[in-house]
Amino acid sequence: MKELSEASGVPVPTIKFYLRERLLPAGERTHPNQSEYDDTHLRRLRLIRALIDIGGLSVSTARAVTSLLDLRSTSIHDVLGLAQHAMAPLLPDQPGPELDLARQHIQGLVDRLGWQVSMGNAGRAGAATVLTTLAALEQPGLAEVLEPYARAAETAARADLDAVAAAGDRDSMVETAVIGMVVGEALTLHLRRMAQEHVSSQRLSHSAGGQAPTGDSPTS
Amino acid sequence: MKELSEASGVPVPTIKFYLRERLLPAGERTHPNQSEYDDTHLRRLRLIRALIDIGGLSVSTARAVTSLLDLRSTSIHDVLGLAQHAMAPLLPDQPGPELDLARQHIQGLVDRLGWQVSMGNAGRAGAATVLTTLAALEQPGLAEVLEPYARAAETAARADLDAVAAAGDRDSMVETAVIGMVVGEALTLHLRRMAQEHVSSQRLSHSAGGQAPTGDSPTS
Repeated sequence: MKELSEASGVPVPTIKFYLRERLLPAGERTHPNQSEYDDTHLRRLRLIRALIDIGGLSVSTARAVTSLLDLRSTSIHDVLGLAQHAMAPLLPDQPGPELDLARQHIQGLVDRLGWQVSMGNAGRAGAATVLTTLAALEQPGLAEVLEPYARAAETAARADLDAVAAAGDRDSMVETAVIGMVVGEALTLHLRRMAQEHVSSQRLSHSAGGQAPTGDSPTS
Repeated sequence: MKELSEASGVPVPTIKFYLRERLLPAGERTHPNQSEYDDTHLRRLRLIRALIDIGGLSVSTARAVTSLLDLRSTSIHDVLGLAQHAMAPLLPDQPGPELDLARQHIQGLVDRLGWQVSMGNAGRAGAATVLTTLAALEQPGLAEVLEPYARAAETAARADLDAVAAAGDRDSMVETAVIGMVVGEALTLHLRRMAQEHVSSQRLSHSAGGQAPTGDSPTS
């Protein structure tokens, strides 16, 4: 365990915690007080740290996500769906006519884009809830982002699935799908911040207190 | 306060908590035991709930974000930057040659896309950290998503800033920018899950255990 800690940079007490929490599979016991860990453990440990530190997952969500790597007869398509459900945030239940309307709105989007998305998709309910929220906050303008956002999401999803397809054998594809799901979410949000600054500096920096006016009028 | 609770659907103890935590400005005291709340309070309360329930923000982050709405002489460009910093997750500090390399990689992306992104941008460091993580996890294929993700992020950011520009006066623009920042993040992730299912079902559903083979080979 000491070697595992040195190789991974993860402190021994943290490794013990991950073992107790069944995030990390037990090593092979060689002596009453000693277990042997191999490269599988090192890889899994690095993955756990990425899920928690970079993906922001809780320990229980990280366990749910890593357990998917041990599924042997589940298709990659289904593993992706399971990973999405494991990671999807719990949203407040707000049934009512507004939510029904928002669901129809989302279905309209799916139809227009020709998407194949099951009713149980992990993002479908959340997207509808966001629309009802924007309506409640009197932000109809923000509802207009739905279609460009969806097109952007499709561009990114094609890249995700390209990476999965390039990973090689089935187990590597599952690993890439799961890592891409979690780490790609973080990357999406970081790049969003960069892209927003770029577009904003092109358009809005002439406003009060801004620097270096460069671009279009906000009303153009 | 009882009326505020009924109009917003937020329980009185929760409203009291938000007042104590300075998320919600105090009402105007009309009697020793009574305060008057107006539409401003109702709007703010709805916003707080959206930030916490839909955006997944902590109370302290929600306070930092809502406090931006009260800034009077800050440009919208700068408010956006402040909101990004308030929301950016704390990432582990992993200085070293790998991180330097990743930073260069991100700068190369910025140059190729012709983006204007300051060195202090809230997403820049995170994007570099994600790249070092993908390298440590031996996922070079996932690093290939960087450029399509960035193009997708730019598409979405243009929609964000279109919505801000359409909001009308300066205060409405700030409000739309802040709400779009937080709620748009949630929408991005929900739509990502939908788009991934669509693309995955087109390409991968023929694998073991999958349903309804429809599309390309994963090796095509």
